[in-house]
Amino acid sequence: MALIVQKYGGTSVGDLNRIRKVAERIIKVYTAGNDVVVVLSAMAGVTDRLIQLAHQITKDPNRRELDVLLATGEQTTVSLLCIMLESMGYPAISLLGYQAEILTNRAFGRARIVEIHADRIKELLSQKKIVAVAGFQGRDQQGNITTLGRGGSDTSAVALAATLRADICEIYTDVEGVFTTDPNLCKNARKLPKISYDEMLEMASLGAKVLQIRAVEFAKKFNVPVHVRSSFKEEEGTMVVEEEKDMERVVVSGVTYSKDEARITLTRVPDQPGIASRIFTPIAEAGIVVDMIIQNTRKGGLTDLTFTVPKSDYQRAMAIQKEAAKTIGAEQVLGDEHIAKVSVIGVGMRSHSGVAAKMFTALARENINIIMISTSEIKISCVIEEKYTELAVRVLHNVFGLDSL
Amino acid sequence: MALIVQKYGGTSVGDLNRIRKVAERIIKVYTAGNDVVVVLSAMAGVTDRLIQLAHQITKDPNRRELDVLLATGEQTTVSLLCIMLESMGYPAISLLGYQAEILTNRAFGRARIVEIHADRIKELLSQKKIVAVAGFQGRDQQGNITTLGRGGSDTSAVALAATLRADICEIYTDVEGVFTTDPNLCKNARKLPKISYDEMLEMASLGAKVLQIRAVEFAKKFNVPVHVRSSFKEEEGTMVVEEEKDMERVVVSGVTYSKDEARITLTRVPDQPGIASRIFTPIAEAGIVVDMIIQNTRKGGLTDLTFTVPKSDYQRAMAIQKEAAKTIGAEQVLGDEHIAKVSVIGVGMRSHSGVAAKMFTALARENINIIMISTSEIKISCVIEEKYTELAVRVLHNVFGLDSL
Repeated sequence: MALIVQKYGGTSVGDLNRIRKVAERIIKVYTAGNDVVVVLSAMAGVTDRLIQLAHQITKDPNRRELDVLLATGEQTTVSLLCIMLESMGYPAISLLGYQAEILTNRAFGRARIVEIHADRIKELLSQKKIVAVAGFQGRDQQGNITTLGRGGSDTSAVALAATLRADICEIYTDVEGVFTTDPNLCKNARKLPKISYDEMLEMASLGAKVLQIRAVEFAKKFNVPVHVRSSFKEEEGTMVVEEEKDMERVVVSGVTYSKDEARITLTRVPDQPGIASRIFTPIAEAGIVVDMIIQNTRKGGLTDLTFTVPKSDYQRAMAIQKEAAKTIGAEQVLGDEHIAKVSVIGVGMRSHSGVAAKMFTALARENINIIMISTSEIKISCVIEEKYTELAVRVLHNVFGLDSL
Repeated sequence: MALIVQKYGGTSVGDLNRIRKVAERIIKVYTAGNDVVVVLSAMAGVTDRLIQLAHQITKDPNRRELDVLLATGEQTTVSLLCIMLESMGYPAISLLGYQAEILTNRAFGRARIVEIHADRIKELLSQKKIVAVAGFQGRDQQGNITTLGRGGSDTSAVALAATLRADICEIYTDVEGVFTTDPNLCKNARKLPKISYDEMLEMASLGAKVLQIRAVEFAKKFNVPVHVRSSFKEEEGTMVVEEEKDMERVVVSGVTYSKDEARITLTRVPDQPGIASRIFTPIAEAGIVVDMIIQNTRKGGLTDLTFTVPKSDYQRAMAIQKEAAKTIGAEQVLGDEHIAKVSVIGVGMRSHSGVAAKMFTALARENINIIMISTSEIKISCVIEEKYTELAVRVLHNVFGLDSL
């Protein structure tokens, strides 16, 4: 007998038939004697439709009220699931974010969970109820409804699993698990049976859309074993767990890519203390997140400075930099939206040398020019021209032995 | 400067354009210096669609969970209205039933308001916010979402007006006010400028669908002036107020009808103590509400007993009575679904005699047979054959001088 937290994504609860399948899965686990807490997303497409509705009123809807609106999505699915379970003869009860006492800060639309008071859930479990919690939502100290941002239901599930000290947190989704790379792009992609939190964090940050980053952070922090698996198939998915000894034997676990960034370069910037601050402060003040930064020293006290920003913020960032360039005396502001970032990730890098060299050589062999490089302990990222993305991913997947894992 | 509670029904908030119109109406009142609390229904048709969705799962959805599902309807409209008001530059905040602390008992689907803690609303009003409260919903002591039943938003509005000691409660709807009878049925129907709580109560009970009965009861109990008016027109509607001296000058204020009942007759029932109890106890235990009851004594210690039940409970009630007839030794159980109840209502009846005689004579003149009669201090109801409904309403409207009010 275990305590299992299951999370079902939007496509898994996309209509009543699918909700019935979800109910059947839950019943199987429940009748085997387990305690079950279920976290649900809104039906696929519903959140987007609600946002569109609000945008028909104004481009910039009041954030508190938008959260009230969006919260109806998960409210609908949890109540329908409980009606379904009850109609099949199983005791179920829904809890909305505030009823589950998922307390967050007040950052509407991108709130962070501060703590969860799980007394009510524990009591309901002791009464042998199946507890269905609305994902993606919480409440702040004043009792306002908050939402956790895109993919927030993953975080709700992992946070609940952590608070309840669940034996496992199962994330049911429309993919079969975590793959060595995007299967749509590389036919040799393979499902990983196991991956460490740190690798998963890098994968999530670098473009793999299986799990929300904050959910992985939570899982790592509280050591929650997470099982990412398909809600449409029976077979096992990928376990996201604490790093294990044998994991380092594999040098590279995955290859990811992202086309979501754009590059900005300031040329011939006077190389003086305080310059970088004057370039990046206005960007930060505009709420734009900078990813990679590279500075090349040129002769004559001048330097070129390149950085990347999300594509959606590119126009704004360019405008800001054109202003900044004038005041700091940079020559030019160049921009490029047609870039991609490909990355190789693996905890094995810590103990294996030559990974970077191998990556650069493989790309060079295909005549793919590397524009920027960024590394961490367990990943190497290269910015390349966007048109080479698919080629680069396939080449790296092969050269690091992932084709035949 | 006044405190005004406004309630808008489902057709008034049926789409974004109409919500914009509602916002404009609110702004007019707000910018004139008034405090405004707005109570909203779900968009027209939404509640029915949600019920249908639940019924696709099961005929008898879990009531607690159905309330969670239904509550999304008003949550959607209040958030959209606040997004609208904020986008137009006015400070607005939505409160759901539990946030407005509308406390109810635990009768899911037909909960009754126990009390309202209005401190938060008062504080928000003192900050000059427009407060939009989700109608139809509340919470019980355990924090479960409850709903108040069909038309419950009227009750939410009046109860809030009572708690806040509002100067007026405006009920915006798709009709222009309270009419002397149904204008769809009688072209001479006229809008009443004023009506007493008691008359409104009888009208609502007897088939006029302008206001929920419980809302009127609340208004009467706490003496809340209610203004029923159209959300599509500027002109004044009908004031529902405490009885005033001059009201008794009009003998009959309105004529109503209802086709929602069916009649059941037990013939040749032994006329003994306890018989009525044995007939009506099983009906009550089945949760069926009996309206009119008539007993005619026959000779030989036998009696005929006739009563009416809601048409929707007719089949169940017939089955129950066929069982009961056997045990008490009644001869036959006869039923009739093709009946209607026409009623004349007016506080003036208290001081005018001959109203009943005038009603019976008018019906007799048209050869309309009266099947049952029921009276109260301020109303007379007759059950007639359903096919005569329209004729009866028109004749009574004319004979009591309402055509030319």
